[in-house]
Amino acid sequence: MMTSLSTTQNPSNGKEGTVTQPANCPYQLFNQEVVWNGKWIQTRQVRFKTSNGQQGVWQSVHRNTKPVEAPADGVSILARVRKEGKLFLVLIKQYRIPCGKLCLELPAGLIDAGETAQQAAIRELKEETGYTSGKVVMESKLCFLDPGLTDDSQCLVVVDVDGDAPENLNPIQVLDSTESIEVLLIEQSKLMAYISNLDSSSIVVESTLLAYAMGIQFATLQ
Amino acid sequence: MMTSLSTTQNPSNGKEGTVTQPANCPYQLFNQEVVWNGKWIQTRQVRFKTSNGQQGVWQSVHRNTKPVEAPADGVSILARVRKEGKLFLVLIKQYRIPCGKLCLELPAGLIDAGETAQQAAIRELKEETGYTSGKVVMESKLCFLDPGLTDDSQCLVVVDVDGDAPENLNPIQVLDSTESIEVLLIEQSKLMAYISNLDSSSIVVESTLLAYAMGIQFATLQ
Repeated sequence: MMTSLSTTQNPSNGKEGTVTQPANCPYQLFNQEVVWNGKWIQTRQVRFKTSNGQQGVWQSVHRNTKPVEAPADGVSILARVRKEGKLFLVLIKQYRIPCGKLCLELPAGLIDAGETAQQAAIRELKEETGYTSGKVVMESKLCFLDPGLTDDSQCLVVVDVDGDAPENLNPIQVLDSTESIEVLLIEQSKLMAYISNLDSSSIVVESTLLAYAMGIQFATLQ
Repeated sequence: MMTSLSTTQNPSNGKEGTVTQPANCPYQLFNQEVVWNGKWIQTRQVRFKTSNGQQGVWQSVHRNTKPVEAPADGVSILARVRKEGKLFLVLIKQYRIPCGKLCLELPAGLIDAGETAQQAAIRELKEETGYTSGKVVMESKLCFLDPGLTDDSQCLVVVDVDGDAPENLNPIQVLDSTESIEVLLIEQSKLMAYISNLDSSSIVVESTLLAYAMGIQFATLQ
């Protein structure tokens, strides 16, 4: 996050607006500007200079929605459903306006004020897919979705779901009034084949899900 | 991509600027605007209406750099190095201005005009890490890094590297004048442990890499 830099943008005296250097930063940063500020996102620009004098400009986008205490902007949920002796993953399909396409994704959502990543994961899984999980298997470190472009961050939360439990036999979504989400159960052993066989002209896939599927495929390939 | 919508933004007659509906889109889209246009990225806003009359606004960011014929904005490279009988993955550490942090990532880069994803992967691997690969194992489908925020897209390209070959004994980077990248070889079997043990106060991790590591870890866990 670069919020500490915002007080030094565009100094009116015409000098370079140098900013406090973040730890580990190999560049001298200056002239940080918020160039567009919307309800949901903010676009920023900062100039940088390398130790050998090369200069450049970096343009980036930042969510305006992260609660101060939240551990990340959002969560993605790897929900492992055991049902009739098989292991499935819960996936969703939804139309994504930024991409102009229907997208296959992990269930995911923004973390609300006061929530932990695990609480957000259990809530979003229930809302988006109807499935109830009683067991968090793992919460990942904070990770960044597209670090050259944005500081949008997430935790990956792995949860187990008993697909044979009464509350999960006919899961019912609790969607916002503007959401339209299709839920799928895909066997983990068939995940990469399922993604590979998608018709790219009608649906695309999200990177985190695809990378997880590739990890499964390449885990044992020497 | 929503470039086909740009001709109908902000009509001056005061009527809603309805736009051609993309395939599979459950919303009526209108008043598409480019609200900020930079050298590298563009910020857009569009209003949408659901079938039951609910309205909202979606704000997103789009790279301005993708060559028309390129299969994606960029590539991320899963470079599997066989060296002295062990299997390693090539990782990089670089400071990311949008995140304000040092970030552990897969080697990656934008696809140049006229390049295939595989050509970009081989080139970027050489430039960022110095390693030479002669074998592409797999090229993934097009995937989207953060589909609720941006149409920034990539292909994941898996390549094999002979770490015992003469050209890979002392790999030499070919960096741009503003780049500063540290290269690491991490054993695939120790990848998740390596990431988990990172000191979060000094370095964070990129989502695609973390999800791949989690896929490896959860491939065999029942």
